[in-house]
This record gives sequence, C-alpha cells and structure tokens, in this order.
Amino acid sequence: MSHDCTFLTDLLSDDQVAFTDATRESHASDWGSRESGHATVPDAVVFPESTADVAAVLAGAHDREIPVTPYAAGTSMEGNAVPAFAGISLDLTRMDAIHDVRPADFQIDVGPGVLGSAVEERVAEEGLFFPPLPSSGDLSTIGGMIANDASGMQTVKYGEVGDWVLELEAVTAEGEVFTAGSKAKKTSAGYNLADLLVGSEGTLAVVTRATLELAGRPEQIRGGRAVFPSLDAATDAVADAVQSGVDVAKIELVDETAGAMANAYQGLDLPDSAMLFVEFHANHGIEAEIDFCRSLFESHGVERFDIASDEEMDTLWEAREELAFAVSSYDPDLSPVHPGDITVPISKLGEIIRYAKQRGREEDLLVPCFGHAGDGNVHYSVLANPSDPEMRAAAEAVYSDVVKRAIEMGGTATGEHGVGLGKREYLEREHGAVAVELMRQVKRAFDPADILNPGKIFPETSEEGGRVAFDLATDD
Amino acid sequence: MSHDCTFLTDLLSDDQVAFTDATRESHASDWGSRESGHATVPDAVVFPESTADVAAVLAGAHDREIPVTPYAAGTSMEGNAVPAFAGISLDLTRMDAIHDVRPADFQIDVGPGVLGSAVEERVAEEGLFFPPLPSSGDLSTIGGMIANDASGMQTVKYGEVGDWVLELEAVTAEGEVFTAGSKAKKTSAGYNLADLLVGSEGTLAVVTRATLELAGRPEQIRGGRAVFPSLDAATDAVADAVQSGVDVAKIELVDETAGAMANAYQGLDLPDSAMLFVEFHANHGIEAEIDFCRSLFESHGVERFDIASDEEMDTLWEAREELAFAVSSYDPDLSPVHPGDITVPISKLGEIIRYAKQRGREEDLLVPCFGHAGDGNVHYSVLANPSDPEMRAAAEAVYSDVVKRAIEMGGTATGEHGVGLGKREYLEREHGAVAVELMRQVKRAFDPADILNPGKIFPETSEEGGRVAFDLATDD
Repeated sequence: MSHDCTFLTDLLSDDQVAFTDATRESHASDWGSRESGHATVPDAVVFPESTADVAAVLAGAHDREIPVTPYAAGTSMEGNAVPAFAGISLDLTRMDAIHDVRPADFQIDVGPGVLGSAVEERVAEEGLFFPPLPSSGDLSTIGGMIANDASGMQTVKYGEVGDWVLELEAVTAEGEVFTAGSKAKKTSAGYNLADLLVGSEGTLAVVTRATLELAGRPEQIRGGRAVFPSLDAATDAVADAVQSGVDVAKIELVDETAGAMANAYQGLDLPDSAMLFVEFHANHGIEAEIDFCRSLFESHGVERFDIASDEEMDTLWEAREELAFAVSSYDPDLSPVHPGDITVPISKLGEIIRYAKQRGREEDLLVPCFGHAGDGNVHYSVLANPSDPEMRAAAEAVYSDVVKRAIEMGGTATGEHGVGLGKREYLEREHGAVAVELMRQVKRAFDPADILNPGKIFPETSEEGGRVAFDLATDD
Repeated sequence: MSHDCTFLTDLLSDDQVAFTDATRESHASDWGSRESGHATVPDAVVFPESTADVAAVLAGAHDREIPVTPYAAGTSMEGNAVPAFAGISLDLTRMDAIHDVRPADFQIDVGPGVLGSAVEERVAEEGLFFPPLPSSGDLSTIGGMIANDASGMQTVKYGEVGDWVLELEAVTAEGEVFTAGSKAKKTSAGYNLADLLVGSEGTLAVVTRATLELAGRPEQIRGGRAVFPSLDAATDAVADAVQSGVDVAKIELVDETAGAMANAYQGLDLPDSAMLFVEFHANHGIEAEIDFCRSLFESHGVERFDIASDEEMDTLWEAREELAFAVSSYDPDLSPVHPGDITVPISKLGEIIRYAKQRGREEDLLVPCFGHAGDGNVHYSVLANPSDPEMRAAAEAVYSDVVKRAIEMGGTATGEHGVGLGKREYLEREHGAVAVELMRQVKRAFDPADILNPGKIFPETSEEGGRVAFDLATDD
C-alpha cells in the first residue's frame, strides 16, 4: 500500500522530507529485521527538528489517515521501528538536543534522538550516570529506549529505563502536545501516563522530550569474571547471588557456546566453560561485597573468580556487548531465527536455560545462551540455515517452545526488546484475552484512527481497517 | 441519589450484604474526610470473599449502572474510598489471604484486603521485607496502597508501592477478570497495564490479587536523630545528603512546630528545633555511611546527631508515625484544612517549606511541616478554627497557594495520597488539559458506563451523566 505524502513538503523545509529510494530503504529495517532479511519501505521519510514539526506531521497524517512510524537509530530487535504499512517514517535523530541538565536534582532533559552515549558523556561531567543504559547504548537513542522500555546490564541493581523516566513531552496522533509524569520524584496525581507511554513502541504518542533521572557515579567500581564447571553451576550461582542479596551492579551469563563464538569473532581466549561477568558498585566497602560474592561462588564450585584490571574488564564487557554480533557471524551458513529475550522469575533461570539447551540438542541445533541472568533475562539464539526449510522449521519450533515455556513459568516473551512485529503472536498467551482487549481499548483511546505505528504489538489488525501486517514471524 | 441494590442478596450470602445504617455509615468516610466532617453514605455495603464475588457484584452493578466504590481500611486522606454518589461500597477486607510466598523469587501473592503489617510479619519469617510500606502500614491494606500508589519513609531508598508491584489480578467494570504485569522482574510485552492500575484509585478496575516484590532484610540497621539550628539548615542538609549520595533508608523532617505538637500528644521532650530522623540499611560497612552522613550534617551546622538505641529509635519512629494525629489533636479549636502532600524536586525543598511557613506567618496561622524530605515530599497542615469562616478562608488560601507553588516548581499536588475528591481541582493545573483529556479517554476505555468510583480524580463529572460529585474541597 502506498500513500500520497506530498503534503509533507508544505509543512517542513526541503531538507526535512525525503522521497528518495536510498533514504526510504534506509528506514525499512532494524537490527532484528535486517537479520531475517525483511524490509517494508516507507513512502516518505521526514526529519522533524522540533516538537512543532512532529505535531504538524502528525496532524497532517491524521487528516489523511496515513500511518506514521517513529524511527531513530534502527537498533530495535523486533521490527519495532519498521513500518508495517509503509506511510511516513518519522526520523527523530535530529531532535538530539540536551536541553537542560540539573545536577542538583539528578535530572536531564533531552530530545528523543539523543544517543545514550551522549547522555553519558554530558552527565559524567557532573559525576552522574544514567544507570539503565542498554548494551547498545552507544548506538541507540533515548527515544527508542523509552519506546521499548529497554534495559541493560545494570538493570539488576538499578532497574529498567522506565524506572528512570520522570516526565515525557509527547504528541498525540492528532498532533496535540502534552506532558506526562512529573519532575517530582514521586507522584500520585492521576493516571500514570508516563509509564503507559514507556514501552508502547510509538503506538500511543510520539515522545518529543524526556526528563530522565540520573544517579551519582559510585566511588568504587570493580569487575571480574567467574568460570564455572558447568552451565548449571553458573545459573545456580546467579540465582543464589541474587537471593542472598549480593549487591551486584552487573551479573552477565555467557555459556560455553556463546563464549566460543566470542573467541572466534573477537580473537579472544575465553575458557571453554560457562562464565559470569560481574561488576560491583559501592561508595565504600567494595572488598567486603566482593568477598561475600566470592564465598558464594565457591559454594557453587567456581573454578576461577578473577577480579580484573579496568583494561581487562573493558575487553570482557566489549566481548559481552558484541555477543549478539558474534553469534550472528559465527557461521556464514547459519542465522539466528529471531532474537530470544525471555525473562523468568530468578528461581526458574536454570530450568529455562536447561530446557533451551535440551531442545537444541534434540534438534541438533546450536543454541548459545547469554544475557542479564540476574534479572532472569536470557538472550538465546537458535541457529539455522535459512535456505534449509526443515532446519529452519526445527529452529522456529525450538525458539517458540522456549518462549512458551517461559510464559508457563510466569515469565515474559520479551524482557527488553518489546513486541514489535516479532512477538505479537505471544501477547495473548502471556496476558490473556481480556488484558489484550484492554490494551486495544487503550490504543483506541489514544489513536482511534490507528495511524501511530499500526500493525505492532497486537496479534492481528483486521479490526483496524482490514490492513494486513507484514509479519516477521511467519513470512518466509 | 439512592440506588436499588436489593439484587445483591441474590449474588452473595446474607452475611456478605449489609443495608444497615451502622454499616453504611462506617463506609461513608476515610481519615481525610473524617477530619473535615463530611460523609457520603453508600446504599449498600458488600463484603466479597473471592474474585468471583467481586466479578458478580460488578457485573450486576454494571447492568444497573450503579456506582461501586472500593473500600478497605478507610485510611485514605482525600476521600478516595468515600462514595461520591452513594451506590455500593465494595469492602475488600475479607479478601485478606496470603495466597503464596515464594522467598526464592522474593515474591508474595496477596488479596487486596491484607494489612501491610500482616505482609511484613509473614515475610519476616523468610528474612524479607516489603520496603515501600507507608507509615500507616499497620492499619492500611495492600489494595489501598496500590490504589493510591502509596509510599513511605523508606521510599527515599527503595521507591514507591508501584515499584514493588509485579502482577495484578483485577476485575473490569463489566465483571471480567484479567491479569496485568508479569511475575518476571522486567518485561516489555505490551502496554504497562499494571502501572496504569497502580494509583488509579479504583476508577479503572478492582484489584483482587497482587504479586508483590520483596527485598532481603539488611544485616545492619541503625537509626538516629539530628538537631539543626534552623529549619533552613535542616532542609539544606537533606538536599545535600541526597545530592551527595548518602545511602539513607529514611530521612524524615520534623519542624519545630510539628515537634512541639508531638511533645504535647505523646509526652515526649523533643527539642524545640528542626530535626531529621534518619535510618541506614546495609549489609556491611554501615559505620562508614553514618560517618559520611555525620560529616555532611556537620557542614550544615548540626547541633547534635545521635545514633540511638533500637528502643530510642522505636519511640522516635512512633512519634513520626503519629505526627498527623499529633497535629490534628494539638488544639481542640483548630483543625487542619486538607492534608498537605506536595512533592518537589529536591533542590526546591527548602524553598517550598520557607514559602509555606512564610504564608502561614502572613496569615497568622500555624503551619507545621514534616514528611519524607529526602523525596522532596512535604506534609504541611494549615490549622484553622472550622467555625471561623474568615480564618478558614485564609487557611484554605495558604493551603492552596503552597500546592500551586509546588506545581510551578515542577512538583506535584500529591506525592502519595492520591487525588480522590480533595485534589481534583489541581489535576489540570499540574498535567495540562490535553493530558487530563487523555486520562479521561483511558477512564472511558476501561469503564464507559462510569460505575467504578465515579466522581474521583477528574475535576468535574458533568459529562458523565450530569452527576454532581460531593466535593471536599469547596463544600462548607
């Protein structure tokens, strides 16, 4: 379906509207959809430079019932920022201003297009940091993180992006500007619209400005790596550390398969064993915390637990951040079917990983597992040859079985990537029909014409005008 | 307006439905409305004992368009649980079961009618606690805390009630049961309905079961009291402690007026000066944290900073918990006009308290200030003789000026009490017309017939069928 978007040239200056194939195609995929080779090309790309620009585009698109899909860095994993029905790609990367920093209140006001790393650099000058930054934070934008309620390695200690969003300026589908939340640290004044916008993937409103909360940079930061005799020992150690209240700021699992792929990708010599990468933050007494963690790891038979120098840790964290690429690049014939992102209650961590590995063995498929284990969040990839339909079907089955088992355990299909296109089929299984219908009612309340990122989150869209969504999950 | 509620006897057993004056009148007020002497008597009171009971009552009431107002301990401060249009009072206190405790996941599943203290007692057996418990936690219920997004003295370290809600079972206005949120520690799967229900004061759905997150009880807990030469010195010390990253678990301000009232109410001998009550939680190294705090307080001229014995601290925390009663009881001729609950960014704490005290002096009124200063949350009371119209009008003006000034500072009219009836007039000033209209749309999406606690939160209700709400704020 293509839409007449020529009206955009009346609203914005020439360099803010693009109809060229190159620009449109560069907005037709994200990290996730690139992997599966899918793309939906928007009819036009616009580059708003202000809230007023966003409001004008939305009002115009709303009048014409043209879909608008917010886009920024394109680092999403589930097609979240890929247009499902063409229309307008709203590229927010020019709205990358840092409007204000208020160190005395631990607050920063930013545009949605600002990179996570730009926030980090600016607030580091004040001795502050933005704790929930995802691993992709150097490349991804604050707007995208808010849209997916992203989180990262430090979430185990500090929480998700949503926990650090105080106030949002946003524009409705009809082009009206509003503010949600408060610059106060807590409020009970009316419905929590800010947390409703967080994680709504641009389907309810377009965020044009965010007030984020910051934290004081800890005086002491130490990192280390623990090597375990088995994957079970490593997952048991994670659960025990969390349950015993070890104050870790990061506790990341890398299984032996993922470790081997990191070695191949980055020329490292990680041991052929399950590992935990950990980091501790404290203002004093960090040695006592490390000792506590060490004795606990020892009770799980840890083979080595080395506290590393800053340079050594930089290498390890870089290896961890690059793991998704290491997995994708491991064998040119193999690609992961969808990015796994399940999260389970911490007591189920070992069980869900054992299940994923076992299903992989049953189908003779590689299933590297890694991720934010302290949150119960596991990134698993099921590798298959895309041109081998049987292998791919087996991989899809393994991938899907793990999601379903995680949901049965009281967990979630997606801990931090969002639903986008790729996880829609699991929404009702996870939340039930009544809750999903309430979500649809909320969508209709905000966007009755269904112009904001239509085709995302909800299982099917036939009710919304009979448009058929491009479907990452079932399309070949 | 009275409604025919006889259908209830067909749905529930005899001892679950009450039409007697005594029971109806006992559900016609809360802590806040009692203070102002107002009450709206429901037509019937029901005592559901299961989710199915709640669903049956709501379905029946929905068919008949009869308002239903959830009620439990009646400890709310803004008429939140007081029927605005009579109808049915849904008393949830019999749904007080602790369904399950999963210490390995730091989780507990409870009914909405369970008291905060019952949760605390049960999880203490596991070495756990529920950190955001409000000061009224011995008397108030988990359902009420969720409805108002309550918080407490430990919020400065641990966050609000909403931050510790993982999953909610709830019943829609039409009587359908659904689940919001996840038992996973983090999720990005669809709209955040759980945080939307939190703080919605029973206007969107009725919570029938909650999965709460818990924390490990710290190994070390120490408390103390700091006495400052002036209120300004005390508020500066609070802001500096927060900004410097002192790891306090409680930091409560008591001004000299509130201190004098506590002395009179409880026979204490608190000094005639501004004080901070503090508490520290740590697993090790608590002395270093206390020393850090002490040196910082000394830089603000602290006169005394005594770390107290457990018994001494119990007395101080009890004094703090009873402060609202001490203020109300201080002079039989004087009552507070409305309970003040503003929250401002921490850098504005001193300024808003100075403003409140100054406006009190201008009108020759007592304005005791106390509260969760580390969050920027101030409970101020403006005392007036209810039978002196001029004095009362002056007190109303002072009260209202402080709310307005807090909002101008980027703060909120209500940090933890909710909007209820009493704060409705400030909602639009705080959030703007567009955001309030979006909140109304959300309300309509969940409850198009407006039967769930109608008349609350929103400034006026003429659109919703011409019912006129009982109004705490302007009624004499």
